[in-house]
Amino acid sequence: MDGDIKMNNQDFSLHESDQVTINQATKDLQGNQFDHFYAIILSGGAGTRLWPLSRELSPKQILRLFGTDSLIRQTITRLTKLVKEERIHIVTGQRLFDEIRNHLLTEFPPCRQVQYILEPAARNTAPAVALAAWQIAKQDPQAILGVFPSDHFITDDQPLLDAVRRAAIAAKDGWLVTFGLQPERPETGFGYIERGEPLSPELCLFRAARFIEKPDLEIAKGLVAAGRFFWNSGMFVFSAHTLLEEVERFLPELSEALRTLDRYSPDERVQFAQQEFERIPPVSLDYGVMEKSERVAMIPVSLQWKDVGSLPALAEFHPKDLADNVTIGHIVQEGCRDSLLYSDSRLIAAIGLENMMVIDTPDATLVCPKERAQEVSKIVARLKEEKAPESVAQRYSHRPWGFYLELEKGSSYQVKHIEVHPGKRLSEQLHRHRSEHWIILQGTAKVTIDGSEKIVQPNESLFIPANARHRLENVGKIPVHLIEVQNGEYLGEDDIVRFTDDFGR
Amino acid sequence: MDGDIKMNNQDFSLHESDQVTINQATKDLQGNQFDHFYAIILSGGAGTRLWPLSRELSPKQILRLFGTDSLIRQTITRLTKLVKEERIHIVTGQRLFDEIRNHLLTEFPPCRQVQYILEPAARNTAPAVALAAWQIAKQDPQAILGVFPSDHFITDDQPLLDAVRRAAIAAKDGWLVTFGLQPERPETGFGYIERGEPLSPELCLFRAARFIEKPDLEIAKGLVAAGRFFWNSGMFVFSAHTLLEEVERFLPELSEALRTLDRYSPDERVQFAQQEFERIPPVSLDYGVMEKSERVAMIPVSLQWKDVGSLPALAEFHPKDLADNVTIGHIVQEGCRDSLLYSDSRLIAAIGLENMMVIDTPDATLVCPKERAQEVSKIVARLKEEKAPESVAQRYSHRPWGFYLELEKGSSYQVKHIEVHPGKRLSEQLHRHRSEHWIILQGTAKVTIDGSEKIVQPNESLFIPANARHRLENVGKIPVHLIEVQNGEYLGEDDIVRFTDDFGR
Repeated sequence: MDGDIKMNNQDFSLHESDQVTINQATKDLQGNQFDHFYAIILSGGAGTRLWPLSRELSPKQILRLFGTDSLIRQTITRLTKLVKEERIHIVTGQRLFDEIRNHLLTEFPPCRQVQYILEPAARNTAPAVALAAWQIAKQDPQAILGVFPSDHFITDDQPLLDAVRRAAIAAKDGWLVTFGLQPERPETGFGYIERGEPLSPELCLFRAARFIEKPDLEIAKGLVAAGRFFWNSGMFVFSAHTLLEEVERFLPELSEALRTLDRYSPDERVQFAQQEFERIPPVSLDYGVMEKSERVAMIPVSLQWKDVGSLPALAEFHPKDLADNVTIGHIVQEGCRDSLLYSDSRLIAAIGLENMMVIDTPDATLVCPKERAQEVSKIVARLKEEKAPESVAQRYSHRPWGFYLELEKGSSYQVKHIEVHPGKRLSEQLHRHRSEHWIILQGTAKVTIDGSEKIVQPNESLFIPANARHRLENVGKIPVHLIEVQNGEYLGEDDIVRFTDDFGR
Repeated sequence: MDGDIKMNNQDFSLHESDQVTINQATKDLQGNQFDHFYAIILSGGAGTRLWPLSRELSPKQILRLFGTDSLIRQTITRLTKLVKEERIHIVTGQRLFDEIRNHLLTEFPPCRQVQYILEPAARNTAPAVALAAWQIAKQDPQAILGVFPSDHFITDDQPLLDAVRRAAIAAKDGWLVTFGLQPERPETGFGYIERGEPLSPELCLFRAARFIEKPDLEIAKGLVAAGRFFWNSGMFVFSAHTLLEEVERFLPELSEALRTLDRYSPDERVQFAQQEFERIPPVSLDYGVMEKSERVAMIPVSLQWKDVGSLPALAEFHPKDLADNVTIGHIVQEGCRDSLLYSDSRLIAAIGLENMMVIDTPDATLVCPKERAQEVSKIVARLKEEKAPESVAQRYSHRPWGFYLELEKGSSYQVKHIEVHPGKRLSEQLHRHRSEHWIILQGTAKVTIDGSEKIVQPNESLFIPANARHRLENVGKIPVHLIEVQNGEYLGEDDIVRFTDDFGR
């Protein structure tokens, strides 16, 4: 145990013997540090860059893009190796909250213990993190916070978790710790951090000498060549106390807003928080605090890491055919090359495409050259202006009890195909503005309407009038499939009064 | 009335005074000729070249591509200026028959009087036309037949109708009359006819010296430059008697098959016709008869005529934006040029496309460079091999009483949105293999199920068990909209037993 960790500009990986040393060090300290460790997952982003796969209400982090689990679930699973699930706080906005919660309750095992912190208004990451720090510090003034994006793809957890453990130790000493990723290429889509003087060889901790915002290609090449610049991973570890001190110093308006919230009772707070937050200028944690503070440190990490910011980047995870096409779904193609052809459900026929992408979802199709994928944001912006529903939600929604697919929607009616998993039941609920017809296609369901119970089977139908308390349960061994026809003057998903729910909603 | 019609290689339009002369001549003769005139509309083609707009069961001729009327209805409307509707015979196959009849009953005014001749097997145009000639000659041995494709686009009827009148006179004298279109460009997609010696200046009739099949570009340029070559329009006029004589001479197997049919009673005929026809080699009327016969004449016609053989050709009928794009439907685009963007219902977002076409229908999307549009047939061929439903039918079907849209289809269920026009009713019918749930969304319907009658209104539902006789009538002033959920072991459109029908089906 000599503490002499070898490092040079090109190689920040730790040697086997050092690794043992550090693991021992963090294990020794873990008892202390991790008693007060909390994970914050930032999940407020609307993920417009993967449109039409992602939508305002189906952002990138809750899509099942890689393997079976969404990126936010992968993030949670990774963090539960550090802290218990109830110490994980997801920061998101009011609109996304229900979608994220439903998503996290949907898969097995469901995440029932995670906590949610609702941003009163979307103001970028500095206010989101400061709010979380302020709230957690109330329960635990010694809190150490790890801040993680919800939409990064990381295949090897261990180097990151080790680095976070070391960062937690440094955080206790008042450092705002960032994680610098060994750059793999002169990427212009990320910010860079310059490694400064060593602070603790034992923790492999350096001062962060400088932050560089997304550079152009020439500068990026220079940064990679220089060897002392690292990609800014967007992950941080600090104590709530340190962060709030630095926010006080560099973002006084934000501190003031939080102090104002303190004056209200928790009940009043909800009411006034929005107007307080709307007054704060939006600012990122990097720009608002990290680039200004003298207390910023960096731990270099070497990770299998991807921030998938575009559909072609997503395609890199899928196998290619002999002409370098990635085809997913029902595709018939003739003479295409280097193209990405993706269909949710319908048929795509493609002839002679080169370097193109076609992304086909139940309500919208995107066709564009791969190199112009970033311009998708222009399309999304125009759709938002038009208030087009295609910018907001997918037609396919997962729920803890199964899923539904919107088949058709008119001004006063809506048709859905609903699947309920065996043994699951929907919440006991009523709707004020709509009645529902259910026609069972498959399986056996128990339906309760205003207290009276009935077993229904394929080819049977039921009518649920507006304002009737009702509940559906799959009492069989195979999925229940049904068609729901809603009639009503208002058809929003939020016209629901829940009485009891197996999923705590 | 000197009969001296001026013509040269470049100009076959008739002079005003000549026109009057000929009109007078045909009017004088019309009483005789048109007593025995019958129109044959060939409508057996499956129209794969406009896929995914056209399908096996929605061929080009029944699509509403130009203005409000389909091409087959435009053809019928044109011909009713010559003959009564009941003298118009549509030749088609068993599979398309119901779709075409439904289509012709759908629009206002419905075509209730047209006759149908069903090809026992698809064997190209010579057997189809010979069968029609054989059948019509039984009722009228002096029959003069005009043969017309169902899918040509013609904006000026009068020159054609005049030419047909003159052709009918020549047909009585034993000529097989073709119509040569003044070529507008060196088109390689059509056959050409060489104008031979003048036969009748009064009728502007020439001998057809030679038929030339689709030429390559160099030859086509030479043909156009030579001035005496005309596009083969695929329209013909001859007496049934003459045609059957020439068929006897050049296609003896076909004559033999027709004679065999004669030996059966009409009831037996249906049973044996298919096997007789399947033995005949497929052959076009041009190749099988016209190119060989000595009795072929040609009348030159100058027409606003198009045989729309591809989707880009279709786009030429629509206005273009400033970047020469044709956009139809809900399209959001950024920086596209010279492209065709068509959507039935969903959103297409397109970025940076040049000379591309995107054709989006409810169940299939085609993306391809415009110049490779002809390769769509390869896609359709592969889909047929796969027995993919996307090659067969559209999800949207017109019926004489309204329309339906298929929302979802599974192996044992199907969901449709049905609209019934005010005052219309479906046939009284039953289904052997499926039951139906109806949920009314809009309007007021009278429903009869096994003799008991009920008025149903929005948000009410009905159940029609398999084998129950049922009928739905829109008794209100606005369209009835309903969702139909079918359950059953077999869901084909042909599981229908009709009792009474307002549309004679």
